[in-house]
Amino acid sequence: MSDVKTLTSGVIALDAEAIKAFASLFDPQPYHLDQQAADNSIFGGLCASGWQVAALSSRLAGEALREAGMTYITTTHVDSMRWLRPSFVGDELMARISLGEQSPGGPVPDAHTQDLTVTVEDGAGHPVAEMQCQVAVAVEGS
Amino acid sequence: MSDVKTLTSGVIALDAEAIKAFASLFDPQPYHLDQQAADNSIFGGLCASGWQVAALSSRLAGEALREAGMTYITTTHVDSMRWLRPSFVGDELMARISLGEQSPGGPVPDAHTQDLTVTVEDGAGHPVAEMQCQVAVAVEGS
Repeated sequence: MSDVKTLTSGVIALDAEAIKAFASLFDPQPYHLDQQAADNSIFGGLCASGWQVAALSSRLAGEALREAGMTYITTTHVDSMRWLRPSFVGDELMARISLGEQSPGGPVPDAHTQDLTVTVEDGAGHPVAEMQCQVAVAVEGS
Repeated sequence: MSDVKTLTSGVIALDAEAIKAFASLFDPQPYHLDQQAADNSIFGGLCASGWQVAALSSRLAGEALREAGMTYITTTHVDSMRWLRPSFVGDELMARISLGEQSPGGPVPDAHTQDLTVTVEDGAGHPVAEMQCQVAVAVEGS
């Protein structure tokens, strides 16, 4: 187990096709689906569904945990998810992960429960979303 | 504005291709990506990423609100998201939406803030996820 308390993830860039494809399935709003409608919306540009950002935040956090030697399995509970500003085409999303308490056991067999605070930033350093959650991390050697 | 306090959504069936496509982008775990690996996993079958279920819960809730005459705009804050059991290929997901307090204003212009509790069920009536959240609903006539 690592004694690192904060982690920084890799980067995932948002592209227009991925934003539109996600929105068509899960969040069919004009400002997620159509460039011109988005340009004329209150957001002023094509931006990602908050759920796409949420799912990416979990992926970025999971990858960062694995790189730090903790085998991320799944997110088991979200205590809070807030979206702070829109995420636009071209934004290079990355996550800063703060490791909270780790408790033995939880809903996943052979795993600890790890509390996390995940802050997603765009490439300009603006926070776009913040999630407080619990994830299952494999017990070493199991 | 409706005085209905609970709503029932339409149904979205999970299919294997959608589960794999979502997981490859957001949650690349063997039990979301590969039928054989999933059959041999603790879940015993190909199941959807929790984030896919979360995004679908928001879509189902938004559609149910619109059908009830409330113009859902977006989910602004999640207070709690819990996954209760896996959602498998063929599950016909639907949502039961309990309407909580409505407060004037919020982060979205010309919108009220509506508290919701959304319970997603599989086709057999088992709850698979529960979300407590706040959504923005357009002020009528705005």
